Amino acid sequence: MSAWVLPDHIADVLPSEARHIEELRRSLLDTARCYGYELVMPPLLEHLESLLTGAGAALDLQTFKLVDQLSGRMMGLRADSTPQVARIDAHLLNRPGVTRLCYCGPVLHTRPGAPHASREPLQFGAEIYGHAGLEADLEILMLALDCLKVVKVASPSVDLADARIVHALLKGVPVEIALAEQIYAALAAKDASELAVLTKKFPSSSRQGLLALVQLYGDEKVLLEAEKALQPLPAITESLSNLKWLASQLDGAKVSFDLADLRGYAYYTGTRFSIYAAGASDALVRGGRYDEVGAVFGRNRPAAGFSLDVKALVGVLPARPLRAAIRAPWREAADLRVAIASLRAQGETVVCVLPGHESEVDEFRCDRELVPRNGQWIVASI
Amino acid sequence: MSAWVLPDHIADVLPSEARHIEELRRSLLDTARCYGYELVMPPLLEHLESLLTGAGAALDLQTFKLVDQLSGRMMGLRADSTPQVARIDAHLLNRPGVTRLCYCGPVLHTRPGAPHASREPLQFGAEIYGHAGLEADLEILMLALDCLKVVKVASPSVDLADARIVHALLKGVPVEIALAEQIYAALAAKDASELAVLTKKFPSSSRQGLLALVQLYGDEKVLLEAEKALQPLPAITESLSNLKWLASQLDGAKVSFDLADLRGYAYYTGTRFSIYAAGASDALVRGGRYDEVGAVFGRNRPAAGFSLDVKALVGVLPARPLRAAIRAPWREAADLRVAIASLRAQGETVVCVLPGHESEVDEFRCDRELVPRNGQWIVASI
Repeated sequence: MSAWVLPDHIADVLPSEARHIEELRRSLLDTARCYGYELVMPPLLEHLESLLTGAGAALDLQTFKLVDQLSGRMMGLRADSTPQVARIDAHLLNRPGVTRLCYCGPVLHTRPGAPHASREPLQFGAEIYGHAGLEADLEILMLALDCLKVVKVASPSVDLADARIVHALLKGVPVEIALAEQIYAALAAKDASELAVLTKKFPSSSRQGLLALVQLYGDEKVLLEAEKALQPLPAITESLSNLKWLASQLDGAKVSFDLADLRGYAYYTGTRFSIYAAGASDALVRGGRYDEVGAVFGRNRPAAGFSLDVKALVGVLPARPLRAAIRAPWREAADLRVAIASLRAQGETVVCVLPGHESEVDEFRCDRELVPRNGQWIVASI
Repeated sequence: MSAWVLPDHIADVLPSEARHIEELRRSLLDTARCYGYELVMPPLLEHLESLLTGAGAALDLQTFKLVDQLSGRMMGLRADSTPQVARIDAHLLNRPGVTRLCYCGPVLHTRPGAPHASREPLQFGAEIYGHAGLEADLEILMLALDCLKVVKVASPSVDLADARIVHALLKGVPVEIALAEQIYAALAAKDASELAVLTKKFPSSSRQGLLALVQLYGDEKVLLEAEKALQPLPAITESLSNLKWLASQLDGAKVSFDLADLRGYAYYTGTRFSIYAAGASDALVRGGRYDEVGAVFGRNRPAAGFSLDVKALVGVLPARPLRAAIRAPWREAADLRVAIASLRAQGETVVCVLPGHESEVDEFRCDRELVPRNGQWIVASI
C-alpha cells in the first residue's frame, strides 16, 4: 500500500481551494462578529461522557474514541461542536444574560454523513443563549442568511419547520422508541401508507394529524392548511403563528415550509430551518432552537443556533482567481530587500526567484516583476 | 465526575484569547502569502504508516491511534504537519521547480511536549521544496522573523546550529543507537564529563571534536573558535561558513550560536534555527533544513521550513483590547434594520438588545448606541 493513499472520505485541500476556504472562514467569522457573536475554540478531544452526555445515539456512532494515556479514560474526537459550545456557555462563561458565541473548526466523523461527504467537515456555527423569545430564532436565521450573502451564495432558499408540531401530535400517545423511529422515518419519506399502518392504534386526532403532515409542505398556504387539518392544540397554534411571523420577517428570501421535516428531531425544541442553494444536493445550513442543549452541563437555558460545513460551502461557489503576484530576482543587495519588504507590507505577494530556478514557471501567477532601472527597483509588467 | 471537566493539557479557548489567536493566525498566513507560500490543508487523520513512515519513534509515541471503521486499518491523528506537507509536495503537487507551502491547523499529542504545554497546539508553518542552496534556508529564516515582527513579538533572538557538525564528527565511528542517544543527551545537557566517558573508545579527533562542542555556544566568536577546535572536515568547514553567511544576512536581529544543540537531530540535515523571545520558556519557532523529509513519499528533494505553535505565541503577547461595539434596540422596523445592516457592512459590531434584556451588560464593550432622532437612526456615544 502506498504511503500517500489517504483513508476514504479524507482528503488534502490543495492551494486554490485552501485559499478559498480560508477566505470564506474569515468572511463567516467576521459576519458573526458584526452581530456580536464572540469566537470560542473548544478542543478537538474531550472525555467521552462530556461529548456524548445528552447527545443521541447518532452522535455516539459518529464519534471516534481513544484512550487517554495520561488518565486511562476514554476520550472522543468531537463530531459536532454545538454541545461543546453549550458546555462553555453553561460552565465556563456562566453569564446571567444573553450570550452569543461562534466557532469554526474541524469535526471528525467515523463514517461520512452522506455518500460523498468528507469525514472531516470544517464546521462553522453560531449560537445564542439566554433568550427564549422568537427574536433570537430570527436573529440566528438572519445571521445565517447574511453569512451566505457575504460569501455570495446565489439565491438561497429557506425551508422552515417546527419540532413542536410532531411532539404535540404524539403527546400522551404511548409510543415505544422503535415505533417512534419508524414514524419519523415514514414522515421524512412522506410515506402516507406506511404511516397509516404504523399509527393504526393511535387516537384518531393524533393519527389524522400525522397523516396530514405528509401533505403539509410548500409555500405559505401550507400554514393555512395546517390550521384546518391539525388539532388546535396550544403548541401547534403557537408553532404555526411563530413560523408565519418568522417568514414575514425574511424580506426577499425564498421561504417554504415542510411541517413533516424531522431531521434532528431529538435535538430541536422549536422552530427549525434548513437553507438550500443551487449546486448543493443537501442543505448547506441547518439550525433552529434547541433549548435543552445545556441541561446536561447543569444549565438548562434557552438556545438557538445554526451550523454549516465550510468545505461543502466552497463546493457550491465558483473558484476565485488568485491575486497576481510580483516576481523578484534574488540578490544579496540591501536596496532590493527594502523594495521587496515595502511591496509585501502593502499586501503584495512577492516571489523571489532563487538562483538556478530562473526559468521555472511558478504556481503564483506573476503579472509583474521587480526590475532595476536607473539605480532603483521598480515594478514593471511582464 | 462532572461532565465539563476536560482532560489534562486540553483546554477551551475563551473569547478574548480566541479572538487574539484568530488575529495572529490571519497575520501569519498573510505574511507567508506575501512571500509566495501557498496554503494547504492536510487532514487531521491519515493511515498510520503514512503519518509515521520515515518519522522517528518520538513522533510514534506522540501520535494518537484509531481504527478506521471503513477499512479496519489503523489511522493516526497528526502530531506534526511537516511530513504531511512533504507528502503533498512529493505526491499531489509533484511540481518540477521550487514549491512554497504553508499551513495552519491543530495537531494532537498523546502527551504534552513540555510540562505546561497543550496537547492540542495550533501549528503554523511554512516549507520550501526544491532548492538546495542556502538562499532557501535564509528565506525561511527571514520569513519566520517577519512573522514574529508582524505579530509584534518584542526583540526575538535567533539561535543558529547545524546538524551536519555532529554527523560529521560521528561519521565512520561505529555507534549503536542507544549510545548515540546518550551522546546526544550529554551534548544537549552540555555535560562534558559524561561525554568524556561515553566517547572513551572513539578516535581522538572525533572525541576532541565532540568535547569541544560543549563549549561552542555564544556570539559569533564561537565560529572562529570552532574553526580552531574542530577537524577541518569538508562538511564542518561548509557548515561553519554557512552559519557565518546566514548570520551576516540577518540585519539587526540578535544572533547566537549553539553548535551542540541537537534538538530534532533525526530530522534536520543542515542549518537549524530556534527563535526565542522574552516570556517564553522554550523556543517559539524551530526550523531549518531537512532534505530527507519527502524521501518516503518517493521524492527525495531539498526542503527547509519552520513551524510554531500559535497558542504558545499568544501567551507571550499582551492581550489586545476588544474593538468597541454599538448597542442597538430591538424593533420590528425596516429603517432600524437598514441602519444596523449598513453599520455592520462597514465592519462595525452592532449588538441587538433583545426584548427583556435591556438592563444586561454585554461582554462586548459598547461605547456607542443606535438611537432614533428626528425620524432617523443615528449613532450616539453612551
